[in-house]
Amino acid sequence: MFDTFAALLDWFGIIVFATTGALVASRKQMDLVGFALLGTATGIGGGTIRDTLINALPVFWVREPAYLVTCVLVSCAVFFLAHIPQSRLKLLLWCDAVGMALFAVTGAEKALLAEAGPIVAVAMGVITATFGGIVRDVLGGESPIILSREVYVSAALGGAVIFVALALAGVAREYALAGGFLA
Amino acid sequence: MFDTFAALLDWFGIIVFATTGALVASRKQMDLVGFALLGTATGIGGGTIRDTLINALPVFWVREPAYLVTCVLVSCAVFFLAHIPQSRLKLLLWCDAVGMALFAVTGAEKALLAEAGPIVAVAMGVITATFGGIVRDVLGGESPIILSREVYVSAALGGAVIFVALALAGVAREYALAGGFLA
Amino acid sequence: MFDTFAALLDWFGIIVFATTGALVASRKQMDLVGFALLGTATGIGGGTIRDTLINALPVFWVREPAYLVTCVLVSCAVFFLAHIPQSRLKLLLWCDAVGMALFAVTGAEKALLAEAGPIVAVAMGVITATFGGIVRDVLGGESPIILSREVYVSAALGGAVIFVALALAGVAREYALAGGFLA
Repeated sequence: MFDTFAALLDWFGIIVFATTGALVASRKQMDLVGFALLGTATGIGGGTIRDTLINALPVFWVREPAYLVTCVLVSCAVFFLAHIPQSRLKLLLWCDAVGMALFAVTGAEKALLAEAGPIVAVAMGVITATFGGIVRDVLGGESPIILSREVYVSAALGGAVIFVALALAGVAREYALAGGFLA
Repeated sequence: MFDTFAALLDWFGIIVFATTGALVASRKQMDLVGFALLGTATGIGGGTIRDTLINALPVFWVREPAYLVTCVLVSCAVFFLAHIPQSRLKLLLWCDAVGMALFAVTGAEKALLAEAGPIVAVAMGVITATFGGIVRDVLGGESPIILSREVYVSAALGGAVIFVALALAGVAREYALAGGFLA
Repeated sequence: MFDTFAALLDWFGIIVFATTGALVASRKQMDLVGFALLGTATGIGGGTIRDTLINALPVFWVREPAYLVTCVLVSCAVFFLAHIPQSRLKLLLWCDAVGMALFAVTGAEKALLAEAGPIVAVAMGVITATFGGIVRDVLGGESPIILSREVYVSAALGGAVIFVALALAGVAREYALAGGFLA
């Protein structure tokens, strides 16, 4: 049951990040392929770097292409639905914060499962949470959003630290995940 | 005979992309080392990311340094020959389009050889075709060219899809390669 | 004794690069987490890409988290000490040059130890020396510094070439390291 819950959080994070990528494509007036490229790169970018660094290769979406298909579908959905310009930036910032909180915890969780130590697990949580957005901003030609919003990086760091601390203290992982996410 | 043909396309794509990298260095008035750095990063960047993601490590140019040497030589050739400013931008855009078409097909081909599924193979074709140019534009301090020219990404995607579809349908790979490139 | 010397150079390079990352964070008025993120990414970024390309995975700081902790501590030290604005840019440029010279040699050394050929070893030296700074500048939203200072890339290239040539010629590695660094 726990695995199902963790997988759900992971899927939700990927969908939310793919949405932010597609919203950036929307702000830049890109076409459908641009939406799919930016949405997919944002949704799976952080996890791709994490899997490479901890040597979980080939990366998760090569083993399970459903992630890739989902990102493309989400991006296309945003393309057809999200043409209400005035609400885009606020939605983008909100989704980005939720996605980072989710990814900080699931990234640290995956590193712990790969038998990394606690320091590395925290670092992987932060990397998973931040690099999808960095890839999105670099591809979209914008200054990386983390520059002006370190408060979100701090939140991701806090979530990852709390999750790892709870997990090491022997708390059932269900509660540790919840604690890390609420932080 | 097929392998020779595929290898030829691959080499041609690398040379063409190295040329575009060197042309960007030329537009930025860099010195010879800047030419070599940008040309090489552009020529082998897309394939490097592909090899990492499908776990074909160490990457192709570590196994076969001739690719590296070729990129450096091409960049130096551009340094000494390409000082005809008015034609540089047009040549750059044209080479970029040809290189992307080549890499979309050879990237998908390599992923299929590594036993990836069709969706992943298409994604690898697109990644190989686009990331060399993205690395070039980021290093050169320009906004990524794909922003304003998604039509080329669409072409790369189309080429990769057609190639993979033909290959799976059992068409002799020679024809599948040709079909993907012509698309 | 040689290993101790090489490890010392490596540590010194990482500390110097982490300092440059933190100085860029200082110039951008970031908070403490921004300092830690930029300092750490700069300190270990080049080595991370090198380890991935030569398939020395998981990367060095996953195997030995002390590197990670050191980068974070150095960044925090800069945060509390480096608020003397007028000297920051000069210090940044000087540290960057020293760090590149160190990393060019230790990067090539590690590639040789991993049984890479001489051309690949030189390339790895240049990659290790340059990509930490590139990651720093992209994250910091600045145009990559190598654009305007190819002379440093040339120096890194020269150092790596001399080190590899001396090492292959059978010179004791202690002297080869010294030769590469002095170049």
